[in-house]
Amino acid sequence: MSPERPRVGLAVVGAGYWGPNLARNAQKTPAMRLEYLCDLDVERARSVMGDYSTVRVVGSFEDVLADPAVDAVAIATPAATHYKVAMAALEAGKHVLVEKPLAPSFAEGRELVEAADRYGRVLMLDHTYCYTQAVGYLRSLIRDGELGDLQYLDSVRINLGLVQRDVDVLWDLAPHDLSIFQSILPEGVHPVAVAAHGADPIRAGRACIVYLTVRLSNGVIAHVHVNWLSPTKIRKMVIGGSARTVVWDDLEPLQRLSIYDRGVECTPAEELDTAGRAATMVSYRTGDMVAPAIQDKEALGAVMAEFADSILVGRQPLTDGRSGLQVLAMLEAASASLAGGGEFVPVREVPAPTSDAVLPRIEVPA
Amino acid sequence: MSPERPRVGLAVVGAGYWGPNLARNAQKTPAMRLEYLCDLDVERARSVMGDYSTVRVVGSFEDVLADPAVDAVAIATPAATHYKVAMAALEAGKHVLVEKPLAPSFAEGRELVEAADRYGRVLMLDHTYCYTQAVGYLRSLIRDGELGDLQYLDSVRINLGLVQRDVDVLWDLAPHDLSIFQSILPEGVHPVAVAAHGADPIRAGRACIVYLTVRLSNGVIAHVHVNWLSPTKIRKMVIGGSARTVVWDDLEPLQRLSIYDRGVECTPAEELDTAGRAATMVSYRTGDMVAPAIQDKEALGAVMAEFADSILVGRQPLTDGRSGLQVLAMLEAASASLAGGGEFVPVREVPAPTSDAVLPRIEVPA
Amino acid sequence: MSPERPRVGLAVVGAGYWGPNLARNAQKTPAMRLEYLCDLDVERARSVMGDYSTVRVVGSFEDVLADPAVDAVAIATPAATHYKVAMAALEAGKHVLVEKPLAPSFAEGRELVEAADRYGRVLMLDHTYCYTQAVGYLRSLIRDGELGDLQYLDSVRINLGLVQRDVDVLWDLAPHDLSIFQSILPEGVHPVAVAAHGADPIRAGRACIVYLTVRLSNGVIAHVHVNWLSPTKIRKMVIGGSARTVVWDDLEPLQRLSIYDRGVECTPAEELDTAGRAATMVSYRTGDMVAPAIQDKEALGAVMAEFADSILVGRQPLTDGRSGLQVLAMLEAASASLAGGGEFVPVREVPAPTSDAVLPRIEVPA
Amino acid sequence: MSPERPRVGLAVVGAGYWGPNLARNAQKTPAMRLEYLCDLDVERARSVMGDYSTVRVVGSFEDVLADPAVDAVAIATPAATHYKVAMAALEAGKHVLVEKPLAPSFAEGRELVEAADRYGRVLMLDHTYCYTQAVGYLRSLIRDGELGDLQYLDSVRINLGLVQRDVDVLWDLAPHDLSIFQSILPEGVHPVAVAAHGADPIRAGRACIVYLTVRLSNGVIAHVHVNWLSPTKIRKMVIGGSARTVVWDDLEPLQRLSIYDRGVECTPAEELDTAGRAATMVSYRTGDMVAPAIQDKEALGAVMAEFADSILVGRQPLTDGRSGLQVLAMLEAASASLAGGGEFVPVREVPAPTSDAVLPRIEVPA
Repeated sequence: MSPERPRVGLAVVGAGYWGPNLARNAQKTPAMRLEYLCDLDVERARSVMGDYSTVRVVGSFEDVLADPAVDAVAIATPAATHYKVAMAALEAGKHVLVEKPLAPSFAEGRELVEAADRYGRVLMLDHTYCYTQAVGYLRSLIRDGELGDLQYLDSVRINLGLVQRDVDVLWDLAPHDLSIFQSILPEGVHPVAVAAHGADPIRAGRACIVYLTVRLSNGVIAHVHVNWLSPTKIRKMVIGGSARTVVWDDLEPLQRLSIYDRGVECTPAEELDTAGRAATMVSYRTGDMVAPAIQDKEALGAVMAEFADSILVGRQPLTDGRSGLQVLAMLEAASASLAGGGEFVPVREVPAPTSDAVLPRIEVPA
Repeated sequence: MSPERPRVGLAVVGAGYWGPNLARNAQKTPAMRLEYLCDLDVERARSVMGDYSTVRVVGSFEDVLADPAVDAVAIATPAATHYKVAMAALEAGKHVLVEKPLAPSFAEGRELVEAADRYGRVLMLDHTYCYTQAVGYLRSLIRDGELGDLQYLDSVRINLGLVQRDVDVLWDLAPHDLSIFQSILPEGVHPVAVAAHGADPIRAGRACIVYLTVRLSNGVIAHVHVNWLSPTKIRKMVIGGSARTVVWDDLEPLQRLSIYDRGVECTPAEELDTAGRAATMVSYRTGDMVAPAIQDKEALGAVMAEFADSILVGRQPLTDGRSGLQVLAMLEAASASLAGGGEFVPVREVPAPTSDAVLPRIEVPA
Repeated sequence: MSPERPRVGLAVVGAGYWGPNLARNAQKTPAMRLEYLCDLDVERARSVMGDYSTVRVVGSFEDVLADPAVDAVAIATPAATHYKVAMAALEAGKHVLVEKPLAPSFAEGRELVEAADRYGRVLMLDHTYCYTQAVGYLRSLIRDGELGDLQYLDSVRINLGLVQRDVDVLWDLAPHDLSIFQSILPEGVHPVAVAAHGADPIRAGRACIVYLTVRLSNGVIAHVHVNWLSPTKIRKMVIGGSARTVVWDDLEPLQRLSIYDRGVECTPAEELDTAGRAATMVSYRTGDMVAPAIQDKEALGAVMAEFADSILVGRQPLTDGRSGLQVLAMLEAASASLAGGGEFVPVREVPAPTSDAVLPRIEVPA
Repeated sequence: MSPERPRVGLAVVGAGYWGPNLARNAQKTPAMRLEYLCDLDVERARSVMGDYSTVRVVGSFEDVLADPAVDAVAIATPAATHYKVAMAALEAGKHVLVEKPLAPSFAEGRELVEAADRYGRVLMLDHTYCYTQAVGYLRSLIRDGELGDLQYLDSVRINLGLVQRDVDVLWDLAPHDLSIFQSILPEGVHPVAVAAHGADPIRAGRACIVYLTVRLSNGVIAHVHVNWLSPTKIRKMVIGGSARTVVWDDLEPLQRLSIYDRGVECTPAEELDTAGRAATMVSYRTGDMVAPAIQDKEALGAVMAEFADSILVGRQPLTDGRSGLQVLAMLEAASASLAGGGEFVPVREVPAPTSDAVLPRIEVPA
């Protein structure tokens, strides 16, 4: 690493399930310098870093914030603490990468977004899937028009999952699907309303199975099935289009994407049918399937690179605070529908950035 | 075939997609004697039977009904005509096997059920899947307690399907799932309310994608995804239980059923958690999977055998008119939910048979 | 069927496992007229045809041969009887379709081929797979150069199979693979030598597992694994080429063929390597995969159509007697290798037809 | 780590493809202390360890051998150098873990085994697969009699692989299969002869496709297919037994092992058959399949633990030098068969340890 090239000093906060992955990838990121792994349980953090590491392990988050060598923090603490930890970091002038969900509520999430704007700091969501090659490919397929008109989105994310103590399966798993949707939808298309049906058959005190229907502003519906109680693991998304339909099976590393030249088309017939109705001509297309070659790289490395680059360049990251806020808006609407009778609940709007919220070019010491 | 053994004289009505299968299986059923294949399009019927058949091909349904050699009719005409054709047959004193759905509406279906009661004739639904080895196995698993307490049912039935002219995807495909549910649910458990969300992205004039949530009387939810626009074919049902969970993949002929000894259990903890809440202990079970050996026989043969036997013995068949009526009740509620805002709509009750509706032992000429 | 259009009068001989399929497909073939199903066990033949058929059932093969309405016979008797039955048919002036293998030995097979030449009759092998859409596609891929230079062929055909009484697994299953190879190999490429290793771990008195290596005249090797003792069923062929490689999985009806734009290329380097050897540059290509849309039709229908057409037109069929003889030549060499020490055994040459063996245009009564 | 508990001081030699994995796992092994990563290309070694490591990076193997803190070396250098590097380490009194193959020839391998005996040092092969949960399960199935009598072994290990510069596909991939066979075969069963057929269709100068048949001392045959040119990746082993047959699919992390209660049995019939032969009764068993729950742990961690433990306890490891030598004996016989005409070549015997070769309890400084 040449001395002139600036590197972002990072502290990872939280040494539980995900924090170690953040720490590992930070160490592989040339534009980063991992300074700390911080956890209230210092022994745990120490055991994560192992016996051969020069990275400092610390129990006090205050010490981390006070260290000027720390430019940024990556937060992998329990969901309920995200708001507090992230706000403290922003107030201390640090850039923030936070695990999903951004905050426990839309209101708190909005405060974080506003604080990041106010302090001119990067607030980025670790929507890891958005940085996979597969999602990048899906985004291109949709935005370059390869799929034709979008017809439907359907995502299944089920397995024998850890029943979380602080969130239900909706808040635990659906952020993945919702952030992916957001990342690949055509420009200008946004969620309008959400309905959710759920169940808690094991009496865990929170929904363990949830079916989610999202109405989009272009009239399309997107459906999500999340489930902690399935003995088999499924990670499959189908995105239907008028020209092509793509199936993403994330558990098939050798064939994640399958793009089908198959579909149904209806065209108005010129005459009325025998019952006097305006008839339609239905035609079927059953062409080939193409499975594009997709490189298999760890997406978290790309997350770290994006975080570092957005800090160094002074720009918004791909999955910025507002994208996290929109996911929160959908989750809150879904929770309201779940608590009610399963009816559609409108999704709150994410406020646009004010003009003075543009991130300044940030000076990072080498 | 010994001369003393009585056989049911059958006419198959409708030589379209399914009728030929009924005719083929009727010819293999020892307790049946296929008399006619009847279709308004006589040429089509003739082409179905081919050049080497002794079965009579006929265009007039009246002639069929007038022939005393015909004890029963199997109806595979378009859905919209089921009521009329079945009622005419019952009124002519024939036993009736009818394709799903029983009738275009609950009211008409009820009339058919009442007519069958009144005339002392068998009214049976061709819910073919209910006669597969797989569904028989599922029924035993559930009713013998092997799965423990039922937790959830989830069914996906999607493929690039024929966009039907007279019914939407709900009425076309969901009867399969709903009749299977009904056939395997524990005794006494019945559907209470249904919510449905759907879409018609190809502007076919009817829903091509529908998501259905059924609330059962035991509090469990069952979910169905039917879709005509999927480039890939999926026929998969997951039935979760407290003791075991079974996955039925109907497209895996060599491993249709997979029974997992995996699950999550919650037991109330003795103490409150640190937040003062009544905590739960969550435990996970990740045991073996067993794929039972399942014989692969054509279910339609079993349908025909059941139809013949219920006529000869004078008993209700496994999938009687009331089972068809209950499917209709769910479909109507789903259509109402679809037409409204996706809210839950109560499912109408199926009237119990009156005491004098017991089928008499029917004399069938040899 | 218009009266002017000639039809081939057919008798199917053998009502065991495969004969019923021949009879069923013959009845669907417009250019055929099924006259008889013949089996020593008349009851069995009768039960195959069922109660509704106008096709005659007969026990005497002599009666069949004596009937001038019979232009051709399709032979599905046990392998050991093929020679005798086929020869009798040819001598009686009938055209012959015979199940694989053509005869129990190369010498007997050659006699049949010569007899067919002499009598001017069609002798065709029911190499059913050669008439599938998949094999047709493979043939085009190879012969049109889409795969580039052929690199290797590998076929696995294993399942829990019926241990045959009269043949080992080599003669039971490998004819499928060998006839497919023959049908798709580039023009002019033929088998040179065969080595086989086998085992009979259940002491059935004949090999139940065989591995076969075929050396082709272009230097390429083809390998076949046939096995009656596998609990799982595999039907998979890989054909490697310098430009593309295709995988045919016959148990994936929705994706039988997968064509990979992946491979390895070696080019001689300009300089010697550090060890003084002529080094090579190795480059890798990891492109997309294409799964072409393949229609799913029963191949046996195409077999029947080809048999009828070759008779009516007076031409050699795609899978003529000589193709069956070449399969016999490979089987005999493999048996010799199996009986010896597994060494390579030369494959006997198939004699070319003499000039006067051209099939005359055959008159078939309508 | 308590100060009293002794730890093995380790140097990893070779920072290419596999060395980094050895180094990573050594760092996680409580009974080890990773002292060095050694590679002639020091920059490469430095880049492997990264910026945050306290492990020393060094270019001189002599320095490593001279350091008394180094008790053992793990060798991941090119195959051609194994003999030299391992011998130097043994002569310097170090314990040795070496990548497969043990040496480029049986003779050199035997020298290493003898040297380890002479110096009283552990010589262990990194036959990683032998330490997976799957192979442990297979070993128990076979040795506890669950499979009944062994009938056959069949292994397929193909993918688009790196064409190695110094070894052909046989020496590159088959050691995995051969070491697994050896690790799971019933006690006392050993390889007797090997035949190999191969091809080099890309003119790489060495076989890229090899089919291997191994005759075992109990009459059973084991077959291996290794291939660098396959566009798809397969890692599948089938082990047939008279009572059960197990399929191991290493690319199905959720269902690696499938144990089938299916098979064929032959029992001698009491009478001769109609042809006067001693007939057999063939019976089929088509029972359930069980997929046992298998933990998914990185096997290399278990390799490291075994290496450390065998050193500390002073015992032979599971995959000792002799197991590596037996793999060499099979590889050499296979190469001879490949170079010849594909005939069976006897496998050389591995000499038993002399009585004084028992490893002394080794003192390792804490």
